[in-house]
Amino acid sequence: MPRQVDHELRRRQIAEALLRLTACRGLEAVSLRTVAAEAGLSMGAVQHYFGSKDEMLLYAVSYQDALRTERITTRVLAGSAEPTPKAILRACVAEFLPITEQSRTETLVGIAFFIRALSEPALATSYAENLPKTLTFFAEQIRQGQRSGTVAADRDPEHEAEILWGLADAQGTEILLGHRTPEQSLATLDYHLDRLFGA
Amino acid sequence: MPRQVDHELRRRQIAEALLRLTACRGLEAVSLRTVAAEAGLSMGAVQHYFGSKDEMLLYAVSYQDALRTERITTRVLAGSAEPTPKAILRACVAEFLPITEQSRTETLVGIAFFIRALSEPALATSYAENLPKTLTFFAEQIRQGQRSGTVAADRDPEHEAEILWGLADAQGTEILLGHRTPEQSLATLDYHLDRLFGA
Repeated sequence: MPRQVDHELRRRQIAEALLRLTACRGLEAVSLRTVAAEAGLSMGAVQHYFGSKDEMLLYAVSYQDALRTERITTRVLAGSAEPTPKAILRACVAEFLPITEQSRTETLVGIAFFIRALSEPALATSYAENLPKTLTFFAEQIRQGQRSGTVAADRDPEHEAEILWGLADAQGTEILLGHRTPEQSLATLDYHLDRLFGA
Repeated sequence: MPRQVDHELRRRQIAEALLRLTACRGLEAVSLRTVAAEAGLSMGAVQHYFGSKDEMLLYAVSYQDALRTERITTRVLAGSAEPTPKAILRACVAEFLPITEQSRTETLVGIAFFIRALSEPALATSYAENLPKTLTFFAEQIRQGQRSGTVAADRDPEHEAEILWGLADAQGTEILLGHRTPEQSLATLDYHLDRLFGA
C-alpha cells in the first residue's frame, strides 16, 4: 500500500491502543512502552510515528474527535437529508454524553486529557483550539435558527453556545458519577432546546 | 481547651494542609505522610484524627464546601439584608468560578476529588450526596422566583437548576484552561440570569 496511507493507518492503530489503555487504566498508564505493547508493535515502531507521548496524545484526541464528528454526521443525516439546526445541536450533545460504551470511553479520555492539559501548557494550547471550534459551531447553528426564524432574535448566539456546552459538559459528569440517568440528561437537553428553538 | 473543640481544630488544620498540598501538587501527592509533614504533625497524630486517606479527603472537601458557603452568605448579605433569589444564585455561581486564588484552589481540589471519585465508589457516594444539595438549592431559588413573579411559571425549576449548574461547571473549566476570562464567564452568567429572572 502507498507509504502515506500506511503511515496514517499505523498512527490510527497506535491511537486506538492509547484510547483503549486510557479508558481502562487512566492516562497515567499511558507510556510509549505500554501503548506499543497494547498495539502489538515495538517501541521503536511507535517512536517512528510519534516523537513524544504528548504528540501521541494529541493525535489520539484529534482522532477520537474526528470519529465522533463522523458518528454525529451519520446520525443527523439518518434523520433527515436537510436537518434543522435544532436537530444538529441535539445530535451533537446527545452523542457527546457518555451513554454508550464508546462515548463513555471518549468522555473518560477527554477528562484524562483535560487533567494533563492543566499542567502541560503545550496540551492546553491544543485543547484551547478544539473547544472554541465546538462553541463556534454551536453559535453558528443558533444564528442559522435566527435566520430561519426558529430562534428569537434577542438571543445571544455566543452566550447560548456557552450555556449549551455547559449543559453537555456537566450532564456528562453527572452520568459518569451515576447522579443522573441518560434519560434524565436527555430530558434536560430537550427542555433546553425546546425553549431555545421556541420562537 | 475542651477536648471536642481541640479535636475539630486539629481536623481543620489537617484538612487545610491537605488542601494546600492538593492545590500545589495534585491529589497524587496526598498521603497520610505528606499531609502530616505539611501540617507539622506526626503521622500518628493524623491517624488519630482520620482512619484513612479517603476519610481525610472527604472531611477536607466538606470543610472546603462549608468555607465557600460561608463566603457566599457573607457576600450575599453584604449586598442586601433580604437578597433576591437572583442575587443569591449570582453570588453562588460567581463564588464557584475559579477567579480568586482561593476559588481556583477549590476548583482544582474539586477536580482532583472528582477524578478519584470516578474510581472509588465510597467517594462517589459522598460526592453524589453533595451535588444534589446544590441543585436542590438552585431549584428552590428558582421556585422562590416563580412565587414572587420574577421567574416565568412555565420554567421547570429542576431542569433550570441543571442548566445553571452546567454553566458554573463548564465556565470554571474554561477559566482554568485560559479559554475565557472571568469577565467573559460573568457576562454569560448575567445574560443567563437576566433571561431566567426576566418575567
